[in-house]
Amino acid sequence: MAEIDRYLKEHAARFEDELCQWLRIASVSADGSYRDDVYTAGEWLATQFRDLGLSTQLVETDGFPVVHAASEPVPGAPTVLVYGHYDVQPPDPLEEWISPPFERTRREGNLYARGATDDKGQLFTHVKSAEAWVRCHGKLPVQLKFVVEGEEEVGSVNLGPFLKQRHQALESQLVVISDTSQFGPGQPAITYGLRGIAYYELRLKGSKQDLHSGSFGGAVSNPATVAARLLAALVDNEGRIQVPGFYDDVTPIDDNERRQLASLGFDEEAFEQQIGVTGTTGEKGYTNLERRWTRPSYDVCGLAAGYQGEGAKTVIPATATAKLSFRLVPKQDPDKITNALRDFLQSLLPPGVTMELVDFHGSAGVVVPLDSPYVAAAARAIEHGFGKRPVNIREGGSIPVVSTFHDELGVDTLLLGWGLNDDNTHGPNEKFCLADFHRGISASARLWKELADC
Amino acid sequence: MAEIDRYLKEHAARFEDELCQWLRIASVSADGSYRDDVYTAGEWLATQFRDLGLSTQLVETDGFPVVHAASEPVPGAPTVLVYGHYDVQPPDPLEEWISPPFERTRREGNLYARGATDDKGQLFTHVKSAEAWVRCHGKLPVQLKFVVEGEEEVGSVNLGPFLKQRHQALESQLVVISDTSQFGPGQPAITYGLRGIAYYELRLKGSKQDLHSGSFGGAVSNPATVAARLLAALVDNEGRIQVPGFYDDVTPIDDNERRQLASLGFDEEAFEQQIGVTGTTGEKGYTNLERRWTRPSYDVCGLAAGYQGEGAKTVIPATATAKLSFRLVPKQDPDKITNALRDFLQSLLPPGVTMELVDFHGSAGVVVPLDSPYVAAAARAIEHGFGKRPVNIREGGSIPVVSTFHDELGVDTLLLGWGLNDDNTHGPNEKFCLADFHRGISASARLWKELADC
Repeated sequence: MAEIDRYLKEHAARFEDELCQWLRIASVSADGSYRDDVYTAGEWLATQFRDLGLSTQLVETDGFPVVHAASEPVPGAPTVLVYGHYDVQPPDPLEEWISPPFERTRREGNLYARGATDDKGQLFTHVKSAEAWVRCHGKLPVQLKFVVEGEEEVGSVNLGPFLKQRHQALESQLVVISDTSQFGPGQPAITYGLRGIAYYELRLKGSKQDLHSGSFGGAVSNPATVAARLLAALVDNEGRIQVPGFYDDVTPIDDNERRQLASLGFDEEAFEQQIGVTGTTGEKGYTNLERRWTRPSYDVCGLAAGYQGEGAKTVIPATATAKLSFRLVPKQDPDKITNALRDFLQSLLPPGVTMELVDFHGSAGVVVPLDSPYVAAAARAIEHGFGKRPVNIREGGSIPVVSTFHDELGVDTLLLGWGLNDDNTHGPNEKFCLADFHRGISASARLWKELADC
Repeated sequence: MAEIDRYLKEHAARFEDELCQWLRIASVSADGSYRDDVYTAGEWLATQFRDLGLSTQLVETDGFPVVHAASEPVPGAPTVLVYGHYDVQPPDPLEEWISPPFERTRREGNLYARGATDDKGQLFTHVKSAEAWVRCHGKLPVQLKFVVEGEEEVGSVNLGPFLKQRHQALESQLVVISDTSQFGPGQPAITYGLRGIAYYELRLKGSKQDLHSGSFGGAVSNPATVAARLLAALVDNEGRIQVPGFYDDVTPIDDNERRQLASLGFDEEAFEQQIGVTGTTGEKGYTNLERRWTRPSYDVCGLAAGYQGEGAKTVIPATATAKLSFRLVPKQDPDKITNALRDFLQSLLPPGVTMELVDFHGSAGVVVPLDSPYVAAAARAIEHGFGKRPVNIREGGSIPVVSTFHDELGVDTLLLGWGLNDDNTHGPNEKFCLADFHRGISASARLWKELADC
């Protein structure tokens, strides 16, 4: 391992430069105007794998291709599937970026760019650790199978079919994903739970075109007002989601886990300062961490209706659109919730307004077992890379593929996050701490060795 | 009058061409990028008045100038103030216009353009009727004082000061405004009541920037969700506005007026077809016409928050903005309502979200007396121009200047509308029926004569 650690130090600057190259490719999967960039970002990664001598394919799907690369089999050692994604979130709102989202900028030890931490930067640690093994020892101590998709930010709709189709080629003992956060700066973590997601676009339509709010106001249903009514009806004043049956499959948090979460010493004041608010809210009867990690939540992610320009325009909008999502906990079924939501919203619709509910993507939440030798191996590797033993945490976000891997390949996932909670992963000024980038590479390099000994 | 009627016929085509010229000037007062066009539209009109030999001024204000023109005094005859506006509503949504909003197009007997009926086309009937008198008889039978402003669509904030300042020069016995609609095609009307308006922009602010809805969802107030809650809380399921004290000053409709409105034979089915809906709603206990003419109403005119692009973006928006308006009935005080609204919204705000309520403009509703000789004169003039006696109606929209004229100059207003309810005055494809344009000119020319005899 000493030789590898030396190699990582020697090549640290180049690793950063290469990541910067990749970040300049604006691979926004949600917006068709970036289509070519998404392809380019996938090809760029494939070239990295080919240069390492990995068997590499860009596998076409009904959407963007999957980069599929594999090192040589290692008899007697487990096979590890490393998952990541080369697509990124849209950069909006652009005007709030201090430096342009696709011209990576180093500031105060961080790398600022869309995708810096989610997920190009984090995934790249595993690419570079593989490089170190190949360059120092000619091969890896375990077989790695990389599966890097270009549609994570739009629901990974083509990953399931891909896994199904390549079921045999992807046989492995565990999945490793770095797309989560540490518990805090200097406190690495293994994430054992994720929330699922159900994301929708609600489209309401009233009159055939915008109406004068004076001549017509009071006698017609206004889609914007109806949107407000429907969206408000989805949650009560105590933060309980009102879709009938929504909580039917929610497992209540047990006292053990409550105590464990409480022992993490969550700093509410620091949390508020970090995001710039003077108070928090949420479902009654739960702590901040419990709300975000173990309870479902509801958010309106976008609203659009009528006149949004400068000044006043007295119209009754013909249409209103809302994007909304539920974060789900394990055992909640996104499809069941979609049906219940559609029925509930439909029941609230007044005459003169019709609705369409577009179901963007859904995935169940997941909790992975903590008592495997792989988890212990990961803890040792992280302690090596970060100089501190990781804590066990859950995470409020969704990595739908974790349940996909479980369902399609029958394997559990190790979530080893090198990011930080204030990395602005879906907002402006996304960043990745460069020290954590290098610690992540070191932990990853050690992980292959620790897993080989399992 | 025969000579005048002949003149109007002879010059009908030119009148249309001139109106088209004026409509090509995109005088959108709400949007700063059209600033120069607003000035140009005012100057164009001033040139029309100067060509008629009227004493004409473009009077500077703190906003756009007022076109002020006057014909010679006529001893023994009343002085008539003709009001109109040369500014227009924004043309959004542009993509829904069949022909471009500022390249007037004639189709099926209509002239399509932003401002065709609101208010350039309607005002222009009085300019052309004045021309006919001047060209045929060298002078008008009454003194006309034109006051045409460029800020009606943004609240007429500088008209009050203008009227106050020119109080003496504007002395008159009545105001004539054509900025309303007929009761239906072929059924002209005199409008005796208007609703007032109070228009706001509600700005909500949460975290310092957009947050990842997975990592943070459930523990922070979401401005978009809060916007929905506040906007929904403003009205109950029976259409009653919930701002405390909102109905305190609302005069209940009396049985007499109920009967009169019922006698107009309102066609609910035609109404629904016209605007393309399969049902209407509104305050419980009132008919469609009563709701729109005699009762206050509430509408959300615009919504903007978070991600509005293609696909899914899982954010908790940092801000949310809504435009909303109340239509008011006589005696409701916009300022009183603004204060009550602000307090009510503030009382509903959860921790972690702050609000700003921008008060765009407000005006009271108005009902004008029907038993004056001027009303009788107008009815005769309209019968001459349109070939049918007008009915007496109210209108749901606001012409705030009607109360301004009452308050500043002490005169009542005759609202003589040549438009139609389906003219799309604030929406795409605004139009003006060309036959009504010419009937309006004829009625207007006769009106000056009828008023001279009062």
